[in-house]
Amino acid sequence: MLKLYFSPLACSLATRISLYEAGADAEFVEVDPKTKRVLADGRDYREVYDLGLVPALALEDGALLTENAAILQYVAELYPQAQLAPRDARGRAELQQWLCFIGTELHKALYVPVLDRKLPEAVHAYALAKAPSRLAWLAKRLEASDYLLDRFSVADAYLVTILNWSSAAPVDLKPYAAIGDYLKRMYARPAVARAIMDEKKLYARELARHASIA
Amino acid sequence: MLKLYFSPLACSLATRISLYEAGADAEFVEVDPKTKRVLADGRDYREVYDLGLVPALALEDGALLTENAAILQYVAELYPQAQLAPRDARGRAELQQWLCFIGTELHKALYVPVLDRKLPEAVHAYALAKAPSRLAWLAKRLEASDYLLDRFSVADAYLVTILNWSSAAPVDLKPYAAIGDYLKRMYARPAVARAIMDEKKLYARELARHASIA
Repeated sequence: MLKLYFSPLACSLATRISLYEAGADAEFVEVDPKTKRVLADGRDYREVYDLGLVPALALEDGALLTENAAILQYVAELYPQAQLAPRDARGRAELQQWLCFIGTELHKALYVPVLDRKLPEAVHAYALAKAPSRLAWLAKRLEASDYLLDRFSVADAYLVTILNWSSAAPVDLKPYAAIGDYLKRMYARPAVARAIMDEKKLYARELARHASIA
Repeated sequence: MLKLYFSPLACSLATRISLYEAGADAEFVEVDPKTKRVLADGRDYREVYDLGLVPALALEDGALLTENAAILQYVAELYPQAQLAPRDARGRAELQQWLCFIGTELHKALYVPVLDRKLPEAVHAYALAKAPSRLAWLAKRLEASDYLLDRFSVADAYLVTILNWSSAAPVDLKPYAAIGDYLKRMYARPAVARAIMDEKKLYARELARHASIA
């Protein structure tokens, strides 16, 4: 069975959403993002993956796949009946374009730095300065289409996961009505709603765990 | 004919390397990274692509593909005889894992901020703090293999493009002998050497152009 290493509401949520969308069986292995411990057995997660980043997907033969975009496309490939990714060359290119945009321009260049409160204000300001052009570009696409591609794909699973952090981040989505409407549509999808509900519970426990340690 | 929008020695170099490796015919359209003007006709490049980022690849039917990882995989797909990407699901996943790692952990999270001299020192320090674990992880792979996958792929074209910025950046590769050896192997490849030589000439002209303006 596939084994997904995840932390609650981290970017690994995109893979959980995709697995739920596909109706796939999988084992979900929680990693504490602060201690890097595997919750179930206390192992150091860096023994599984040197960089200690989630998601990582352990495949049936024991191989470990890392990096969100790679894992998402692999899950789509494993469950073709769920139609989570286009299968033609042009469609795959468009999917990769969006996965790449979300991964670099939104996830790594914007949300990761602004969500890290320990960073100096200058780092936040640097990250936020580039946000309006990126969000406007995204909104332009979402004004034209209900999904990033012409139907739900793993790129939407990734995008809703990242945008879901906006409530905790100083990223103002209000000027972009199309992004707000999109989020509402995504939250209404059963697989997305269930995945977020499941991880919200675990996230509350994670917060409680660290509050009791501190 | 394919039309590649590029700036000299920018990350678009990876696509030029891949096109040279494939022996592909393409038109190379230079964009000044500071003024965002298309050099040949003075057009504002943001009329072609809102975000003004290179590379962008205009396809034969006029569609525009953006984002490095997407373009590289599409070029590999267009020229299968060059074997620039694996064709099986697992191989594609490994390729995407490396493209994603280079794009997020090296390109966007490390080299882009440290190469921007106008940024406050705090931003540089933030970016550099994560470098050793990322470079050690990369070196571990390159100790085991001459290439990121088991043969040259578009991921190597991307990696040599990014590492090639190290001479101008405060990123110290010396502790990672396997990365230095890898770079020497890459620079010795005819397509890589020719692509860098071609763009170095254009880069020198770009610098001269801005020096005469300033």
